[in-house]
Amino acid sequence: MRQRNKPWAKDRMNEYPQYLIANPEQHKGKWFEVFEKNQPLHIEIGTGKGRFITGMAKANPDINYIGIELIESIIVCALDKLIEEELPNLKLLNVNAAELEKYFAKGDVDRVYLNFSDPWPKVRHEKRRLTFDSFLRVYENILVDEGEIHFKTDNQGLFEYSLTSFSKYGLLLTYVSLDLHQSDFIGNIMTEYEEKFSNKGSRIYRSEVKYRKK
Amino acid sequence: MRQRNKPWAKDRMNEYPQYLIANPEQHKGKWFEVFEKNQPLHIEIGTGKGRFITGMAKANPDINYIGIELIESIIVCALDKLIEEELPNLKLLNVNAAELEKYFAKGDVDRVYLNFSDPWPKVRHEKRRLTFDSFLRVYENILVDEGEIHFKTDNQGLFEYSLTSFSKYGLLLTYVSLDLHQSDFIGNIMTEYEEKFSNKGSRIYRSEVKYRKK
Ligand SMILES: C[S@@+](CC[C@H](N)C(=O)[O-])C[C@H]1O[C@@H](n2cnc3c(N)ncnc32)[C@H](O)[C@@H]1O
Ligand SMILES: C[S@@+](CC[C@H](N)C(=O)[O-])C[C@H]1O[C@@H](n2cnc3c(N)ncnc32)[C@H](O)[C@@H]1O
Repeated sequence: MRQRNKPWAKDRMNEYPQYLIANPEQHKGKWFEVFEKNQPLHIEIGTGKGRFITGMAKANPDINYIGIELIESIIVCALDKLIEEELPNLKLLNVNAAELEKYFAKGDVDRVYLNFSDPWPKVRHEKRRLTFDSFLRVYENILVDEGEIHFKTDNQGLFEYSLTSFSKYGLLLTYVSLDLHQSDFIGNIMTEYEEKFSNKGSRIYRSEVKYRKK
Repeated sequence: MRQRNKPWAKDRMNEYPQYLIANPEQHKGKWFEVFEKNQPLHIEIGTGKGRFITGMAKANPDINYIGIELIESIIVCALDKLIEEELPNLKLLNVNAAELEKYFAKGDVDRVYLNFSDPWPKVRHEKRRLTFDSFLRVYENILVDEGEIHFKTDNQGLFEYSLTSFSKYGLLLTYVSLDLHQSDFIGNIMTEYEEKFSNKGSRIYRSEVKYRKK
């Protein structure tokens, strides 16, 4: 998801610290403080333009959400949606997923969403995939015990890879759909990429995994 | 796979005890005796008319194979293929997979193949699926340590179910293809069902799982 450089993005982000968290390290271990209500926290990693996470926050007022996105010029689109919707249970965070342990303590997060993560199809780029071993370790270190990852993608290769990566890590596969839009799954909220690829006729794959009790 | 009753099937089977093992309990713990060479043993469960297992036996002379099929009138078709081919590393067995522990000791088998197993789509028939927990226990009790199951099917629901069943059991998923015939998998040998369903345009799913060290 490359976009033209948007020099105004930074300014726009600084304008709305109530939505786009400025100093995330200050909230480590006490994220409930940034929300109106102290309730479970679900995060999406690589949230893009924010359609999924705003939809989820609207549909589930009893859950707090944080959308995490690396690229400034993309996260501002999610910010625009949030400004419009004024959702008390949604915040955004412009950081790199590889560094989440700096900002979240073990148990801060109840669930991780990964949607249409960059596939990095070349074997030599395996380590960049958000379902690679080192990322699964990061998620484990910020999730509650038996925390979950919910993962959607249209990319067959990434899905195949991720299923074996999850298994190798010792994660428990509790749900898998090899054709989400033809399945009986209820309450699916589409992401931008999901709409684009399913309109082109691609199948959408979905899985849920859970860290096992230690 | 229902077939007309073939009363002559039993007679035909009795004619060829060198191919269709008559008293399997006698070989428990020493299956190498029934083959020319003492080498790894792979079994296929629900072998049908035997195209896969005869193809595998021909392609891999350094492995012994047993094709296991419940229905007499079907296994005789596999028998006919074997009579024609005279393969020294292939035997057939007309027993129920649920009872394999009667005939095989722990460690007798190096790999289990499941191909296009009956899907039993109704939830109340879950226990009949050859990837249900109780069957995974049977396979574990006859396989070597870290033994493998290789599984192919065209049935999306059965494949989804099986991936979660494998995971729940604690099996390690080492390989998955969500479109075998478009993948770079080398040396695939088609089964009768595989040819039929792929000709109709169905995708073929394939996975390999491994029992974890205890
Ligand atoms: C292919 S897009 C999908 C966006 C959105 N989830 C959707 O489904 O429409 C992947 C997004 O992940 C973001 N991303 C990739 N690696 C990241 C990382 N390490 N940390 C945070 N975001 C990341 C990218 O910037 C990009 O916006
Ligand atoms: C759908 S057919 C597939 C046959 C073959 N593997 C193929 O791919 O062409 C499934 C076969 O499994 C056999 N089968 C089902 N349950 C079995 C069991 N418990 N033990 C042995 N064979 C079984 C059936 O009789 C049937 O021939």
